[in-house]
Amino acid sequence: MGKKLGKQTIMLDHPAKIIGNFSIVGEKEGQGNFASYFDMILKDDKYGQKTYEKAEKKMMLEAIKGCLHKAHLTTSQVELYLAGDLLNQIISASFSARELDCSYLGIYGACSTMSEILGIGALLMDTGAYDHILCATGSHFTTAERQYRYPLELGNQRPPTSQWTITGAGASMLSKEGNAPKITHVTFGKVMDYNIKDVNNMGAAMAPAAMDTLITLFQDTHTQPKDYDLIVTGDLGKLGSEILMDLMENKGYTLGKNYADCGQMMYTNNQKTYQGGSGAGCSAVVFNSYLVDKLKKKEYKKIIFAATGALLSTTSSQQGESIPGICHAIIVEGA
Amino acid sequence: MGKKLGKQTIMLDHPAKIIGNFSIVGEKEGQGNFASYFDMILKDDKYGQKTYEKAEKKMMLEAIKGCLHKAHLTTSQVELYLAGDLLNQIISASFSARELDCSYLGIYGACSTMSEILGIGALLMDTGAYDHILCATGSHFTTAERQYRYPLELGNQRPPTSQWTITGAGASMLSKEGNAPKITHVTFGKVMDYNIKDVNNMGAAMAPAAMDTLITLFQDTHTQPKDYDLIVTGDLGKLGSEILMDLMENKGYTLGKNYADCGQMMYTNNQKTYQGGSGAGCSAVVFNSYLVDKLKKKEYKKIIFAATGALLSTTSSQQGESIPGICHAIIVEGA
Repeated sequence: MGKKLGKQTIMLDHPAKIIGNFSIVGEKEGQGNFASYFDMILKDDKYGQKTYEKAEKKMMLEAIKGCLHKAHLTTSQVELYLAGDLLNQIISASFSARELDCSYLGIYGACSTMSEILGIGALLMDTGAYDHILCATGSHFTTAERQYRYPLELGNQRPPTSQWTITGAGASMLSKEGNAPKITHVTFGKVMDYNIKDVNNMGAAMAPAAMDTLITLFQDTHTQPKDYDLIVTGDLGKLGSEILMDLMENKGYTLGKNYADCGQMMYTNNQKTYQGGSGAGCSAVVFNSYLVDKLKKKEYKKIIFAATGALLSTTSSQQGESIPGICHAIIVEGA
Repeated sequence: MGKKLGKQTIMLDHPAKIIGNFSIVGEKEGQGNFASYFDMILKDDKYGQKTYEKAEKKMMLEAIKGCLHKAHLTTSQVELYLAGDLLNQIISASFSARELDCSYLGIYGACSTMSEILGIGALLMDTGAYDHILCATGSHFTTAERQYRYPLELGNQRPPTSQWTITGAGASMLSKEGNAPKITHVTFGKVMDYNIKDVNNMGAAMAPAAMDTLITLFQDTHTQPKDYDLIVTGDLGKLGSEILMDLMENKGYTLGKNYADCGQMMYTNNQKTYQGGSGAGCSAVVFNSYLVDKLKKKEYKKIIFAATGALLSTTSSQQGESIPGICHAIIVEGA
């Protein structure tokens, strides 16, 4: 039985073990800072498909397949598939579920999806009812641009506060048993809205949610930032990360050298992505490559993985609404 | 600790009690068959808002408020809010969460959302970590028409296989303690696709998923249709319900007089909705009015609530994809 600590944190009685991971990315991401950690790098972002949406789905399926292989499991051993993505009606998630033969739960957390599904999966596993739960998410630069912003053919200039939606998908296999990095605590975030309306400044919209979730986690668990080898947010980007550090400092929490952001780290400066990477795939591919790798090697003993999401739609922005943000955090310990 | 029965069904160790419910509907639904059961009927589907999307969000908030009131709880006693809806990026759910002060999980199950969130909520409660979990969903005829089909101003003719997305929202409060109808079993469905491509025939697309989930539930629990006072699907409509009964009959399961469909029952014949109601709000308002009412009065001792969803998007259909369906089922027993 899980135990509630403080306001929003659940301490798991039986931590969920992450026994398999897979990351697949596009060409640009394969030239970035994590290149050597990814399992698979595409040479063609269309992945041999007729449309970019179909390519996005195929990446999710490849991530699932690779994850099953690395976890030494067959499809029939998976009991539940948790997935979500950025596309309208999360079609990459639902259409990838069509290829599996197990229960499926569609989840929507925008770019916070990876930590949302890992958190839900870890809690569902704590009921004792499941042995293996598969979690996957992804995003694609081209599908996101044309859905949220403009078709690429228009050749729009990108403002300096913008981020680059990464092309990639990541999958994790949660298991009741096994010697692997484990999820020990889950803090599901609240929706925070500081009245940011600039859809080209997502980092600013999400930073308050990251602050709220991280401070809640520290208070609920009676810990401090220094108690973790790494505190990593999802895709605040360079500007958003700085805003988060400022907001935290104002509340008496200093995020030091053990703080990082997946989006900020994704690309090299020469890749001209302005504030860095974003998208549901951003934190998913970093978690399922670099982060789990370091946890397995015990270079990290305990980390906070806090993916962040902006819960807007084009309709909500057109109707003058500000951008609500959310951040779900999990504590993961090395094997 | 929950126990897995067979392939996909979880038997809860501590059934979640449904201690509060609220249903709010539009004018047309308020003239339908369930009129006397709904808590609130709007006189104006725009609900005093500038846009129909804002009206949809306001209905969700009203349902939450009413549900809290009927459960005798204050906002601060809610620990987790589970919600989803049909709009792109589930903005009704996320923007309603902004008004609450608790953890929020966005869920996407299209029209299966009500049973998906009740199922997730019941399982999360079974971890022992939560006392109160709020679940809500809804839909709006006008927002759905213009997002999925055509703007109403176009005056398109509706084909005879079409259904009418209901305007309404429903909310349920799950509680660890209390004397109230309780969720005892959860069967999360698999994605089923029988290659239906007609977006005006959702009942046909979803019926195979309903069949698969119901038969799995019967097999997992070693029960038969006759063991339940009611087996109710979400929004298959008239044609979809007939298809389901045929499919089930072919597999040796007869759905008799104890089978019904929320969409089929929603409107009177004079309301000219062709196959009946649909939308995430459809099963949500019937569950949170008529069904819970009958369970409270012990007119029903045990029912299966199996909401159904079509997991398409306009993009997937435009790209030639067929329509994947899903059905999540819960067993609810009277107080």
